[in-house]
Amino acid sequence: MQNIQTYINTHKDRFLNELIELLKIPSISADSTYKNEVIKTAEAVKTQLEQAGCDTVEICKTKGFPIVYGEKMIDKNLPTVLVYGHYDVQPPDPLNLWNSPPFEPVIKETDSHPEGAIFARGACDDKGQMYMHVKALEFMTKTKQLPCNVKFMIEGEEEVGSENLGDFVKANREKLSNDVILISDTGMIAKDTPSITTGLRGLSYVEVEVTGPNRDLHSGLYGGAVANPINVLAKMIASLHDENNHITIPGFYDKVEILSEAERAEMAKAPFSLEAYKKALDIDAVYGEAGYTTNERNSIRPTLDVNGIWGGYTGEGAKTVIASKAYAKISMRLVPHQDWKEITQLFKSHFESIAPKGVTVKVTPHHGGQGYVTPIDCIGYQAASKAYKSTFGKTPIPQRSGGSIPIVSLFEKELKSKTILMGFGLDSDAIHSPNEHFGIFNYLKGIETIPYFYKYFTELSKQK
Amino acid sequence: MQNIQTYINTHKDRFLNELIELLKIPSISADSTYKNEVIKTAEAVKTQLEQAGCDTVEICKTKGFPIVYGEKMIDKNLPTVLVYGHYDVQPPDPLNLWNSPPFEPVIKETDSHPEGAIFARGACDDKGQMYMHVKALEFMTKTKQLPCNVKFMIEGEEEVGSENLGDFVKANREKLSNDVILISDTGMIAKDTPSITTGLRGLSYVEVEVTGPNRDLHSGLYGGAVANPINVLAKMIASLHDENNHITIPGFYDKVEILSEAERAEMAKAPFSLEAYKKALDIDAVYGEAGYTTNERNSIRPTLDVNGIWGGYTGEGAKTVIASKAYAKISMRLVPHQDWKEITQLFKSHFESIAPKGVTVKVTPHHGGQGYVTPIDCIGYQAASKAYKSTFGKTPIPQRSGGSIPIVSLFEKELKSKTILMGFGLDSDAIHSPNEHFGIFNYLKGIETIPYFYKYFTELSKQK
Repeated sequence: MQNIQTYINTHKDRFLNELIELLKIPSISADSTYKNEVIKTAEAVKTQLEQAGCDTVEICKTKGFPIVYGEKMIDKNLPTVLVYGHYDVQPPDPLNLWNSPPFEPVIKETDSHPEGAIFARGACDDKGQMYMHVKALEFMTKTKQLPCNVKFMIEGEEEVGSENLGDFVKANREKLSNDVILISDTGMIAKDTPSITTGLRGLSYVEVEVTGPNRDLHSGLYGGAVANPINVLAKMIASLHDENNHITIPGFYDKVEILSEAERAEMAKAPFSLEAYKKALDIDAVYGEAGYTTNERNSIRPTLDVNGIWGGYTGEGAKTVIASKAYAKISMRLVPHQDWKEITQLFKSHFESIAPKGVTVKVTPHHGGQGYVTPIDCIGYQAASKAYKSTFGKTPIPQRSGGSIPIVSLFEKELKSKTILMGFGLDSDAIHSPNEHFGIFNYLKGIETIPYFYKYFTELSKQK
Repeated sequence: MQNIQTYINTHKDRFLNELIELLKIPSISADSTYKNEVIKTAEAVKTQLEQAGCDTVEICKTKGFPIVYGEKMIDKNLPTVLVYGHYDVQPPDPLNLWNSPPFEPVIKETDSHPEGAIFARGACDDKGQMYMHVKALEFMTKTKQLPCNVKFMIEGEEEVGSENLGDFVKANREKLSNDVILISDTGMIAKDTPSITTGLRGLSYVEVEVTGPNRDLHSGLYGGAVANPINVLAKMIASLHDENNHITIPGFYDKVEILSEAERAEMAKAPFSLEAYKKALDIDAVYGEAGYTTNERNSIRPTLDVNGIWGGYTGEGAKTVIASKAYAKISMRLVPHQDWKEITQLFKSHFESIAPKGVTVKVTPHHGGQGYVTPIDCIGYQAASKAYKSTFGKTPIPQRSGGSIPIVSLFEKELKSKTILMGFGLDSDAIHSPNEHFGIFNYLKGIETIPYFYKYFTELSKQK
């Protein structure tokens, strides 16, 4: 790829400043108070795609937040890459744990990022990684090295389950037609160990409500005589795992993909230090399903976690009350072959069935998505592998991720093409946590690597 | 008692309006934002005690909120009644469940209060019941019928555990010396069924904090691989009761007072309809310790209830996070002979001992107090019984309450006198709940009954 490093060195300050401007807009899709900021972000993305060289860019309305679509078509006979990303971000709370305001980006050096990292909500997930593709396009168009057609689909509801993306994709199969889908919304093993994510977990996210007495009660007068919704909710949640941390929902494991010992042995080769892992999290022990390693627990095995719980008096001091209601947000990470809608139904039926007399239980599904696996013999994977080799000097390691990008399986179903997950973030980048950040090295390396993917994918396509 | 009904009828509008003014001040002792309002309430009480006929009234500083002390001494040779009450109130939340603002009192009719009830936080607990004593004193002084000496001790920290009252009492034994202590901070069985509370439960209130990883984590990348503090807290809470709803803390029941079958049979005579109880709370079944009735579960048996729980994402929508910390407020109601400090220590040791690897647990005691029993053969009880007979035409039923007034046992220890609990509230008055109210009938009946207690207590004291 001609003079890409020169181009990046010449423009890297601008590349950083443009991203910082984008990060200043609090596009929190989960919180309706930020509605206008989310829409403002979509408009900013449109402007940047136009400046990067897209011929047409439109902001496509949905029932929720809009999807930014852009394209640069150079030749119908050449392959087409569809880039997917999202411009919305996770809520930043707990705010008090941020060392600098989540929407006032700052650059600081860290142990893993001696060249500096941008600290802001969305820095890595996904504004930073999405914007690498915009800048890669800029390089390819400005230096006349774009080898194929490119389409962008950047949505604003990924952090709330991409509720309207499915309808958009189904309604625009022709417009979105492509030969491969490229996404940077995952991580890599380490700065010197590139990896490509070949598996994603599915997700089922529900909210539960336990109602006891019709009003809050004095715990002295009623304590011990009526079912306390918080105690009951705790009992019900506790019962969802057995003593081996297996999930107790009947039928939950029926369709779980069972990996061969050979595959598990291959996975086990990925560099991993349990001591470093525990030290990084400041925990004295890991915890999880019996019979599996830490890397297996968070990738090839399904899990159930409470993401939030609340009920009763949570203010300062003490209040001797029995709450009328208690709530929890619960999510299950699913593995290939588990159907998220079926699992959601299994959870609902089971959770309602274990409610004791004296309370009523309501289960409300939030959203979900299927798991996904990328075959390493497809040309998309091959092209990505060669691209990393060119810029890192190393062949990337295929790895299963514990995370979910629910729409990947939807793309395969509706658009009949494979998705390649080229992630440049690190596990230590604290996505979804306070002090999320993205390494400048990773950001620029992504911009450098992506054009090689276009090059090799176009070449390999011709050889077919 | 001469023309008391005439006096009440003549002044009842003023009696109501004065109470309403007091209820307008949000004296929430648990929330430091209301510090000034709490102090303002103390000053208002001082003014009212002076106007009601106290010779001296002072606002006594403590490390926390002040205690209002007032007295009217007419003759050293006559007995002295010490009235205790509190001017602070519970926090009003959840605010959205109030039909009218908690600190904008309104009078509305209800099924149990066809004459109308005052709706406001503190209407019954304890501003309304405390103020009955102020108005009873006004009647006795204005009509020259005060038969004995009277002292008032009205504190502002009852709802947060009366943390500074103990020191005050110990430092002022002489000033507070008395022959009987009179408190209206409990309830009666029904408007036509007067009752005197002869037993109170003790209390131990703690806050627990479970810490897992040192920061919030992405549930996809870490879910299933590290201990989730919320899941762990739920498991730990669930384990505090066994399948019979016995509390599992080792040693918890060792000192519990065991009532004889005869006593339990006597208690069982109190009018009670399980159907009406369930209907009032809109529950399909009661829930509690095996082997005991509802009235036993909430009076003669100790209990453990979670009063509040929180952790992770509790906002709108979904956030796939594993929280670093989870919290709960837990209170235990204790019965006579259980020592609250010992129980708090037993809880702490047990709760810390059941924490799994991968998390750390912190237990912070909030406050507590001992249980108490009033012997029905003491002259204080006899005087109260005759007083109710005079105004209700019925002998009151002695009953054990599930609630706690931690300082009652302190009074007996430090001041060597018995406490008589003349409560005029109803269980349906929703104390500690949204829409707390106090019946106008009950308020005025209290003002009418209290002077008879003074009369009979003085007479019975002379006969000794």
